[in-house]
Amino acid sequence: MAHRSRLSTILIDTPGGDAPAAATFWSAALGVPARAVPGEAQFTSLPGALPDLTLAVQAVDDAARFHIDIETDDVEAETERLIALGAVPVGQWLDCHTLRAPGGHLLCVIPRHSEPEVFERLAQVWE
Amino acid sequence: MAHRSRLSTILIDTPGGDAPAAATFWSAALGVPARAVPGEAQFTSLPGALPDLTLAVQAVDDAARFHIDIETDDVEAETERLIALGAVPVGQWLDCHTLRAPGGHLLCVIPRHSEPEVFERLAQVWE
Repeated sequence: MAHRSRLSTILIDTPGGDAPAAATFWSAALGVPARAVPGEAQFTSLPGALPDLTLAVQAVDDAARFHIDIETDDVEAETERLIALGAVPVGQWLDCHTLRAPGGHLLCVIPRHSEPEVFERLAQVWE
Repeated sequence: MAHRSRLSTILIDTPGGDAPAAATFWSAALGVPARAVPGEAQFTSLPGALPDLTLAVQAVDDAARFHIDIETDDVEAETERLIALGAVPVGQWLDCHTLRAPGGHLLCVIPRHSEPEVFERLAQVWE
């Protein structure tokens, strides 16, 4: 069964107490609104900052870093594909699988969340 | 004088010895080529990975992290604008000014490098 995926999201992971200041800065720096995400209090989205991608500040308990999300219509198959390419599983939270890529960077495999038109246009197909 | 800027680039900064493995992984993970950048041996670009953005692996002497670049037609004015918003200067290398954003993330202000059509379409104007 083929599945599809694409790099969909850049997360600005920020220690919790600094997250409001980070959201204010990135909003002004990029000239876009900062919007609370209903039901997901840790996120502040920055809609319009990047073409066809999501950019958001996430309040975390860890150090400041960026991470990326890969969205997919089959989280299990995409996670297995990336592990076969050398990524190492480091955790799972709800539907999100966190992996460490060769070179040391964190990425999360998440269920498709972008608009159907965007996913159809930009996702890669993996046979 | 007005100037313009936009978030143009996501850099996958990777400890030097791991950079080839990182480039191989991200190329396969995203389904795009990995291309050496003539005259800039530390970079491997991943063309086509992100719409209207540059994604590249950069070999560094530091720990693995992502950072972002903001391209502009006036590096001095853009750097001053971001400092006024709360960013802190941490270094300069050739035309690139490195800043630490509120929340702790690194960004670089660089001269415009994307295609003129892309910059015209996507850059914000700062009066």
